[in-house]
Amino acid sequence: MRYLHTMVRVSDVEASLRFYCDLLGLEEIRRRDSERGRFTLIFLAAPGQIDSQLELTHNWDPEAYTGGRNFGHLAYAVDDIFAVCERLRDGGVVIHRPPRDGRMAFVRSPDGISVELLQDGEALAPREPWTSMPSTGTW
Amino acid sequence: MRYLHTMVRVSDVEASLRFYCDLLGLEEIRRRDSERGRFTLIFLAAPGQIDSQLELTHNWDPEAYTGGRNFGHLAYAVDDIFAVCERLRDGGVVIHRPPRDGRMAFVRSPDGISVELLQDGEALAPREPWTSMPSTGTW
Repeated sequence: MRYLHTMVRVSDVEASLRFYCDLLGLEEIRRRDSERGRFTLIFLAAPGQIDSQLELTHNWDPEAYTGGRNFGHLAYAVDDIFAVCERLRDGGVVIHRPPRDGRMAFVRSPDGISVELLQDGEALAPREPWTSMPSTGTW
Repeated sequence: MRYLHTMVRVSDVEASLRFYCDLLGLEEIRRRDSERGRFTLIFLAAPGQIDSQLELTHNWDPEAYTGGRNFGHLAYAVDDIFAVCERLRDGGVVIHRPPRDGRMAFVRSPDGISVELLQDGEALAPREPWTSMPSTGTW
């Protein structure tokens, strides 16, 4: 067996692509519109990692999405956790769990999907503004 | 950046390992118990696909988990969708969306996480008992 993807539902395609691609760094692999089913599927992946995808399902008929506790989060390793968190914060994303330790951070997608960011390899040396930034909300 | 894992919370480790490993076919990669945090983390992966993991988080203090609509499902390709569904059904798992088309099925974990199974490559020739098995519940 092979892992293919994790699917999350998105209420706003534009806002979701801004979060997952422009700010987080995933790339769009393929897209499918179904007139009959009134949905759009968008498959994303980290650069060069096409076998592990994130599927965004957008139902054309509006629906507000909430989360449940059985799903936890999506986790990605990043090359520079401070740079990614700065880009996300500059883009208006709340850093719920700032990378105070230079190692781990948590943010949420526009539809409340929790995303864990982990520094690839060794933790970075802690530095401001992250060191003194409090956690906020839940993640 | 690299995809690391999708995390789901599990209320019963034994029941979850039976579902994800014994019946579905994932393998345990590593495990970590935290006395201080009162939790156990178990990392699973499809055989030979160690870079795309499923993290099971078990909090020692009992909690009942429900789902939300923002998370959709986990998807895995399988070599023989009929064989996997038969194993799951024999193990007491409800096949919510039977593989009538020889291509796609949906089941749920003990904590309600939806899992999509997709036949790897070409769909298998439809056959009973799957062809006439109705869908049940939601997935």
